Amino acid sequence: MLFKLKNSESRILLIILSVIFASSSIIYAQKYDYKHIADSVLNYSLSERAGYKWLRELCNIGPRLSGTDNYQKATDWAVQKFTEIGCDSVWLQTVKVPFWVRGEKESAEIVSPEKAAGRKLSIASLGGSIGTNGILKAKVIEVSNFDDVKNLSPSEAKGKILFFNEPFDQSEPTTFRSYGKAVRQRGNGAIEAAKLGGVAALVRSVTSKPDNVPHVGMMRYADSVMQVPAAAIGVEDADYLSSLLKSNPDVEVSIEMDCSPMGEADSYNIIAQVNGSEFPDEVIVVGGHFDSWDKGHGAHDDGAPCIQTMEVLHQIKVLNLKPKRTIRCVLFANEESGLRGAVEYGKYAETAKEKHYAAIESDRGVFTPRGFNIDADSMVIAEMQAWLPYLNKLKIDWIRKGSSGADISRIKNTKALIGYVPDDQRYFDFHHSANDVYQSVNAREMQYGTAAITLLAYLISQEGLK
Amino acid sequence: MLFKLKNSESRILLIILSVIFASSSIIYAQKYDYKHIADSVLNYSLSERAGYKWLRELCNIGPRLSGTDNYQKATDWAVQKFTEIGCDSVWLQTVKVPFWVRGEKESAEIVSPEKAAGRKLSIASLGGSIGTNGILKAKVIEVSNFDDVKNLSPSEAKGKILFFNEPFDQSEPTTFRSYGKAVRQRGNGAIEAAKLGGVAALVRSVTSKPDNVPHVGMMRYADSVMQVPAAAIGVEDADYLSSLLKSNPDVEVSIEMDCSPMGEADSYNIIAQVNGSEFPDEVIVVGGHFDSWDKGHGAHDDGAPCIQTMEVLHQIKVLNLKPKRTIRCVLFANEESGLRGAVEYGKYAETAKEKHYAAIESDRGVFTPRGFNIDADSMVIAEMQAWLPYLNKLKIDWIRKGSSGADISRIKNTKALIGYVPDDQRYFDFHHSANDVYQSVNAREMQYGTAAITLLAYLISQEGLK
Repeated sequence: MLFKLKNSESRILLIILSVIFASSSIIYAQKYDYKHIADSVLNYSLSERAGYKWLRELCNIGPRLSGTDNYQKATDWAVQKFTEIGCDSVWLQTVKVPFWVRGEKESAEIVSPEKAAGRKLSIASLGGSIGTNGILKAKVIEVSNFDDVKNLSPSEAKGKILFFNEPFDQSEPTTFRSYGKAVRQRGNGAIEAAKLGGVAALVRSVTSKPDNVPHVGMMRYADSVMQVPAAAIGVEDADYLSSLLKSNPDVEVSIEMDCSPMGEADSYNIIAQVNGSEFPDEVIVVGGHFDSWDKGHGAHDDGAPCIQTMEVLHQIKVLNLKPKRTIRCVLFANEESGLRGAVEYGKYAETAKEKHYAAIESDRGVFTPRGFNIDADSMVIAEMQAWLPYLNKLKIDWIRKGSSGADISRIKNTKALIGYVPDDQRYFDFHHSANDVYQSVNAREMQYGTAAITLLAYLISQEGLK
Repeated sequence: MLFKLKNSESRILLIILSVIFASSSIIYAQKYDYKHIADSVLNYSLSERAGYKWLRELCNIGPRLSGTDNYQKATDWAVQKFTEIGCDSVWLQTVKVPFWVRGEKESAEIVSPEKAAGRKLSIASLGGSIGTNGILKAKVIEVSNFDDVKNLSPSEAKGKILFFNEPFDQSEPTTFRSYGKAVRQRGNGAIEAAKLGGVAALVRSVTSKPDNVPHVGMMRYADSVMQVPAAAIGVEDADYLSSLLKSNPDVEVSIEMDCSPMGEADSYNIIAQVNGSEFPDEVIVVGGHFDSWDKGHGAHDDGAPCIQTMEVLHQIKVLNLKPKRTIRCVLFANEESGLRGAVEYGKYAETAKEKHYAAIESDRGVFTPRGFNIDADSMVIAEMQAWLPYLNKLKIDWIRKGSSGADISRIKNTKALIGYVPDDQRYFDFHHSANDVYQSVNAREMQYGTAAITLLAYLISQEGLK
């Protein structure tokens, strides 16, 4: 017969065919597995809600301002959690952080005109600010756009409270851009005020929510410029003050704040990992910053996102996913007032014997997933985009080049730095304020994100990157 | 010269080249325009927030139960709004709707065991239910999964209140599927209770939010089965009742409700349009249902989505978009308790001289956009998918085959029926309850959706569909 093969030939053919079928079945099995794993991860996330339950525990501790007892209690809680998860190792990296105390006094009210005298204003000291050293009374001058401060002369501003009232630009498609524009007045308002001889900076809260809750955050001083106190004011009161100034330019306000920078304190990066089965020295970092501001619970910023990355390790263990590469969760100290945790971890990463393969940061709240921003070569991004059919199920609709995150930015020579991007429309309603509490987090939105981050970390671990 | 052309030839070549350049520049201009229009629509949506302002006015009227004075007031408000927008025509289509009155009495409490006696239960009569005709006192039997009702015998259920306690399945990826499973007990609980000789149905609220607010909605009776009263119970109290039953199977509850179906009333579909400039007889419908349940404001369901489609006409006018095809907004009467508005509009559409070209429904709340579900030929869907580069800016990440919507389902022979799909994670936190108020709507999320629906309606109007 024309096609009759010798025994040896048929054996070779059989082997070739076996290899072809075996490898195609491996490919099939892998693809099948990821679909299946995506389903398992999502199902576990939504039905067990482990992270959402942990969030209640974390929020019960209270806010986690850098260097405080609360941060220490939260550190102990996280270490306990990682231990319960069954991580292969859990350790702390010491980080010196700036320590600032809000104090007891934090109030402001209208002094004149008479018709408004005694009206309280909703304010909160900005992080890093000095106090007022008793009651500070002064006239107010409004700067409605931060760029306009250049047009003010010292004769107009001297001895006054500079009231920076640039609104959050709601016409921007992304709220992060609106924030980026308006936050300059919070960061630099005190410096610009002092340069003009002003005695304090009162800064419109940088928020998308038109309520009267002050939204705090870091402010800066410059070495060569006198230090003056700075406070955030609620949006409703900022609008009120602005309208009062329109009818009466001699509005006088009193402010009392006894906050104070208090040097440095010890804090920690909290680190835990599940070792890789094939490439244990190739490390995929997942994490967020564990410190927060002291109004609210620091739920969206950044407690719940940290917990999403803690739950990556939990799901890896509980779903028995056996990653080829090591997956390490890093809860960074002190993002809010100095990025010191990120800097220290970056130094460690540079000299560590293990290779930092990739890193995923979650620091945009825990709303429904949209995508991942990637800092990497376009080839690597394309490779990750090929995983979208699996990630789509977890509401990841895109993967694209973009800014990843502040805390992982100090980890050098990875194949990819990745920022998890949930929906951003509501983030600045809560950010840095008493609105950012446990109750503001939706369990389903949070747990969808957990599933998405878990699957991406796992895909990188199993498939690798070019 | 080899390439020298005669004058006549060169003129022809010039004409040919001009035509080629002209048509390619038209194509370029069109594409450029849609990008530009997407930007304009989004910018206008986010900065002006017209619809969000209208929502406050609409919610101030109160809920819009079918056939009530409030629905009539809201109708007047919408007609006024369409007139101010400058629509080419505004008209009402009369619709007979079922009229049901909640009444004054609506309460329940534990009668026994003694340790729990007098404890109030948070309940609300279900839409369409009869009252209890005084105080109804009876023992309670729990049905923890609606399918289990088949396993109950009349001897177990006779004379009892059937307590349907199937939870909202949080493990489902889409909340609409969880709702679809659990809502059977609300729709059919009273029928199944009566079949077994039960005296009432007490139904766990079909909601994703574990609070104690009752979530109402329509229930049904069957012609051949006795009518018994039916009420929703808050999730916390449902859990409480269930745990009480575990320790004491003889729990007795009293219920008092004086709600009553009251025949029919006149209501209206509210219709307004901007005429097409080239194909005025080809109509693209946008709309939602204008009636609501009577707890809360009916903000997400379906006031704000209706307003999104009203704002389509507003933006068409204010941005001077000049649609080729007619764009018509239809605010449907009575989706909640009978779909009568949709049925009547469907009858009208069948005999109308104009052609119903396409329809877009918004009835899934006003959360951040995700995509559009399309009922159409796959060729048409592919055609619309080619517009995704414009729609992506408005957070439309996908266009796919899927269920469009109840109200437009009665419009026959269109090229496409389209359902707007915003994020669904939080919808059933609010749905049919006192949680569904103006304050539960985020302006940015709502206005993003408005922009997406406006652009899609405009693209269909200008580009047409195969």
